[in-house]
Amino acid sequence: MSFAPLQNDTFLRACLRQATEHTPVWLMRQAGRYLPEYCATRAKAGSFMGLATNVQYATEVTLQPLDRYKLDAAILFSDILTVPDAMGLGLSFALGEGPKFATAVRDEAAVAKLEVPDMNKLRYVFDAVTSIRKALNGRVPLIGFSGSPWTLACYMVEGAGSDDYRLVKTMLYQRPDLMHRMLAVNADAVAAYLNAQIEAGAQAVMIFDSWGGVLADGAFQSFSMAYTERVLRQLKREHEGVKIPRIVFTKGGGLWLQEMASLDCEVLGLDWTVNLGKARAMVGGAVGGPGKALQGNIDPNVLFASAPQIETEVARVLDSFGRPHTDTSTTGPTHIFNLGHGISQFTPPEHVAALVDAVHAHSKRQRQGV
Amino acid sequence: MSFAPLQNDTFLRACLRQATEHTPVWLMRQAGRYLPEYCATRAKAGSFMGLATNVQYATEVTLQPLDRYKLDAAILFSDILTVPDAMGLGLSFALGEGPKFATAVRDEAAVAKLEVPDMNKLRYVFDAVTSIRKALNGRVPLIGFSGSPWTLACYMVEGAGSDDYRLVKTMLYQRPDLMHRMLAVNADAVAAYLNAQIEAGAQAVMIFDSWGGVLADGAFQSFSMAYTERVLRQLKREHEGVKIPRIVFTKGGGLWLQEMASLDCEVLGLDWTVNLGKARAMVGGAVGGPGKALQGNIDPNVLFASAPQIETEVARVLDSFGRPHTDTSTTGPTHIFNLGHGISQFTPPEHVAALVDAVHAHSKRQRQGV
Repeated sequence: MSFAPLQNDTFLRACLRQATEHTPVWLMRQAGRYLPEYCATRAKAGSFMGLATNVQYATEVTLQPLDRYKLDAAILFSDILTVPDAMGLGLSFALGEGPKFATAVRDEAAVAKLEVPDMNKLRYVFDAVTSIRKALNGRVPLIGFSGSPWTLACYMVEGAGSDDYRLVKTMLYQRPDLMHRMLAVNADAVAAYLNAQIEAGAQAVMIFDSWGGVLADGAFQSFSMAYTERVLRQLKREHEGVKIPRIVFTKGGGLWLQEMASLDCEVLGLDWTVNLGKARAMVGGAVGGPGKALQGNIDPNVLFASAPQIETEVARVLDSFGRPHTDTSTTGPTHIFNLGHGISQFTPPEHVAALVDAVHAHSKRQRQGV
Repeated sequence: MSFAPLQNDTFLRACLRQATEHTPVWLMRQAGRYLPEYCATRAKAGSFMGLATNVQYATEVTLQPLDRYKLDAAILFSDILTVPDAMGLGLSFALGEGPKFATAVRDEAAVAKLEVPDMNKLRYVFDAVTSIRKALNGRVPLIGFSGSPWTLACYMVEGAGSDDYRLVKTMLYQRPDLMHRMLAVNADAVAAYLNAQIEAGAQAVMIFDSWGGVLADGAFQSFSMAYTERVLRQLKREHEGVKIPRIVFTKGGGLWLQEMASLDCEVLGLDWTVNLGKARAMVGGAVGGPGKALQGNIDPNVLFASAPQIETEVARVLDSFGRPHTDTSTTGPTHIFNLGHGISQFTPPEHVAALVDAVHAHSKRQRQGV
């Protein structure tokens, strides 16, 4: 496929630890309910899945935040749970509630039946990727994504969100053999899914390990990180001669950052509990040396404060990372600004503009050493 | 007041980093709904607050787990939110739901009205402490407790539990002046409350910072840790010539462990995401040197596995801490075994016996160098 040339590659360069003129910024769940135009499209679509499975609607809502804000990347409008849906578990979203599966996977027989789904069942996602990429027309890069094998397993076993993860952890501690089998299937499915997104036009991919942080030390490494690595090992490094950066975001995973430095990916996403300066020292690498680009990590609740307060907090987060490297001849520590979690549906849209503009303005000042 | 002499002081010695013959164990929420006898008493009491405010019932349920298991400490049956209830906010628990306040504290006027409550309104707690201490008759020490200033503020502003802490964080980012005032009042109230528990007979006190971990790096230090420290500064170090150890547990606070080493307390509680070996190296101190005792941190969901699996996981947690020091002539690294969070109401009671017995057996083997 051939698409229009990229006009703003700041995000992709920062992912590859190349120097940029400003710190690129995008926001998890930037196409979401805080935007009235999103709610209007969703109303037309009738349901969340109606929105996600309709190529035209998915394209429309993906581009909405870009029309309002000077964001440096677009992210596919979809859900982290499309893969288990394609496995036949029946994903739905009741209004105002989180995801639900019609069928939960709770015993040996259910686990035995699991297999990597036919990727044609996810054709709507790949078609959306291509459609969005065309509609972007080179404005900014497009990020594809999936839930991590462990995060998918949480929902597959619990059947919905949970506050204690009792059922999935019971399986983990009681029947680790079943859990490992489920995670292996999930990992291979996620890898096929992300590779197909790359072929369809995704210019970077992100693995959301939204529930990695609920695991105990030890269990995280065996049941989450090992399978994220299994996905990463299978992913395309480049497509049509262009590198495809891979981002891993483990919510609540700050304690395992040193271990995650060994993951075969370019970028690590961080939530707001992590000190970016310490994270940079730990895994950001030196100029000319290897390391991970870091993505994150402002608390989305900062967006409920006033514009000047938002600017102060943005500066605090940027300064916590410190001045990114500016040597255009080599790689070095870089930062991609983001929230530490998805944006709240109650966010005043004009506050997002204050945040995005503050990131650009302050990060330019940082580079000028002001 | 005079109480029977203590027959098992293992827990208190471990809190003070003194050598013990085995690793003491108690469980957060050990008097709780997983025990049929607890449910029976609660049914008689009519409600959670009916149970907590009745000295006889509170005594009864506090002792119930000690009759089943060889626990090394008792913890007052109460709630972390009694202090804001005494401030007039009206605490209640609907069946099967979390705590709720009739009045939430959301604006300047409401914050201005807050003050340290008359401790006589909490007399039922102090009476329960004395009654339990008498009923224990020296079997094991009694732990008193409170929510931390920040954790109280979360519930006071939200009015109930939350999954995004939007309201309390909005106040924090938008009106830090109000938040600081509320936290100062909370800290002074919690200090007075815990000191009164100590005078009534509590032999150790614990501050539950259940929601410290939802804060961003930076905000945690200013809005949670600083006010926990304000409580600690005001607490009695000893009562009637006996040292009163102070435990601070910040759920999700593992990333700030190094900073928490400076807190003026004897014990730091850890959740299951923390590697106990790393925590010991960081804050556990050397033999003869200063340091913190560590409490924690098995995932309560381990209790849903089989007895042999529970034994394996218990050994893993104990071995992760490593052999505690055994020099009876001085202080050194010690471990108090606990869950990383409260026990689930769905826990099979007989599995708790397997856990407690495994802690005693394996930790004795550790000391013998087996």
